[in-house]
Amino acid sequence: MSQLATVHIGHWTGAGTGVTVLLPPEGTVGSGEVRGGAPATREFALLDPARMMDRVDAVVLSGGSAFGLAAADGVMRLLHERGSGFATPAGPVPIVVGMSLFDGVLGPHAPGPAEGRAAAVAALLGEPLRSGKVGAGTGATSGKHSGKLFPGGFGWAQRRIATGASPTQDTTIALAAVAVVNAWGDIIGPTGSPTFSDADGVPLPARGAGQGVAPQGLQATTLVVVITDARLSKLDCHLLAQSGHDGLVRALDPVHTRFDGDAVVALATGAAGIAGDTDALRAATPHVVADAIRGAATPAA
Amino acid sequence: MSQLATVHIGHWTGAGTGVTVLLPPEGTVGSGEVRGGAPATREFALLDPARMMDRVDAVVLSGGSAFGLAAADGVMRLLHERGSGFATPAGPVPIVVGMSLFDGVLGPHAPGPAEGRAAAVAALLGEPLRSGKVGAGTGATSGKHSGKLFPGGFGWAQRRIATGASPTQDTTIALAAVAVVNAWGDIIGPTGSPTFSDADGVPLPARGAGQGVAPQGLQATTLVVVITDARLSKLDCHLLAQSGHDGLVRALDPVHTRFDGDAVVALATGAAGIAGDTDALRAATPHVVADAIRGAATPAA
Repeated sequence: MSQLATVHIGHWTGAGTGVTVLLPPEGTVGSGEVRGGAPATREFALLDPARMMDRVDAVVLSGGSAFGLAAADGVMRLLHERGSGFATPAGPVPIVVGMSLFDGVLGPHAPGPAEGRAAAVAALLGEPLRSGKVGAGTGATSGKHSGKLFPGGFGWAQRRIATGASPTQDTTIALAAVAVVNAWGDIIGPTGSPTFSDADGVPLPARGAGQGVAPQGLQATTLVVVITDARLSKLDCHLLAQSGHDGLVRALDPVHTRFDGDAVVALATGAAGIAGDTDALRAATPHVVADAIRGAATPAA
Repeated sequence: MSQLATVHIGHWTGAGTGVTVLLPPEGTVGSGEVRGGAPATREFALLDPARMMDRVDAVVLSGGSAFGLAAADGVMRLLHERGSGFATPAGPVPIVVGMSLFDGVLGPHAPGPAEGRAAAVAALLGEPLRSGKVGAGTGATSGKHSGKLFPGGFGWAQRRIATGASPTQDTTIALAAVAVVNAWGDIIGPTGSPTFSDADGVPLPARGAGQGVAPQGLQATTLVVVITDARLSKLDCHLLAQSGHDGLVRALDPVHTRFDGDAVVALATGAAGIAGDTDALRAATPHVVADAIRGAATPAA
């Protein structure tokens, strides 16, 4: 499977870094929210419900810290070549949202336009969707608050939600989430315990770390995209993104710290042709997001 | 005990409704955030970190839905009589933040200025701090999303946080939370399971309820105040309030719904004379808030 809830997803995987691109169908509405202290994002101002633009043509998740935001350039050009984007007299302007994480790969080694394009092409080609240390999750780790590096990576989850409409036809809608987990905190399981124990971790580089103290130059981030194939307004997508952050709270501890660039985008593709029950979607979203985070890195994987 | 982390707290308890007043010491800095869909608040615009005012003289939690915001009037007058507030040429203007919840007591039956004053006087008199169905928690319930009313109420929790400063003196600071739990969702325990089972609930009034559907006229809300006796900036208090909302996520499901007026205020009294470690405080806050929520209503209480 390379589609989640009608969104095509593809990875480019490099040496200690990577890119993951999500290509939703035409007509997708999106919004988002940042709750971490150290975000690296592109087009997030536009995701504010008060702004006019409500379409999203692509979401680019990348390593390489803020350098990795360049990966969106390659996706912009690819989409422009395909005629996708917000129509203007001068041609389409694709709305490409970017979110990057710190995996220690900087400057010329960070993912750029070519790597972003490669991930977008992979999404279009329909390669099977892998999880773990792939795409933007390649260099991702967790548990840095404890002075160790525990596994991180790319994960996803999905379920179907009843809409409560006619019983004579299929009125369920899809709710999915992808997560790139590079958290400052621990990944915690459904009963609140850390997923990894000391034996799973490797010590942080010697420049120092400690509880509540940022190791110099080491930052963190968990990036999430919530997806439904129902129709939602941009404002409802914003509320869905808020519930997405509640999923981070369920699966990470500590969460939303100063050192995390925690950010969530929510997309409603509308491909199911059904208006979404925002409340039912929001109630399920923290569970789906937590599942996606936990699926990014599993013990003995 | 009537003090938590140097903040005096008092209840007025009426028939199916009530008021709880928090009176922090002079010099307290505060901020706050709303994450629920149906808030009833007073002075929240002022809590935005971008606004000039950073002091908080009182926080008033009340039943009576938006009518209950009148309870703050009585606290305003009491504080004015005592000379407390932001100094102006015309005399002090107390900064009194209000948050109310829907307990079904409306109009002339809702708490007003006299009830607010009574709760403030109780705080000053140092009456022992009770939890459960007292003060603003008197008419509070939980679990309404399931079509039943489960217990709710007023709860609190506290712990001490190491600052990492000199080992030769007491450098721990207090972190506390109070919660009035009137949630749309269930209260969930540390391992994620609902605290109450069907046998603990009573059916909602006949006008109807169901998963994801608001019973007509029945709303919900969880109100939290996070308190530390450390010194923090207003901006850091805002971040502490954000972490307070993460505590709601740990102890309530679903949380932050359209029908909840979920709101958190964070106060830093500075009485400990120590600058707070914002990151350590924020990491502990979800746990303290979750404990306060769970302490508001316990099985077979």
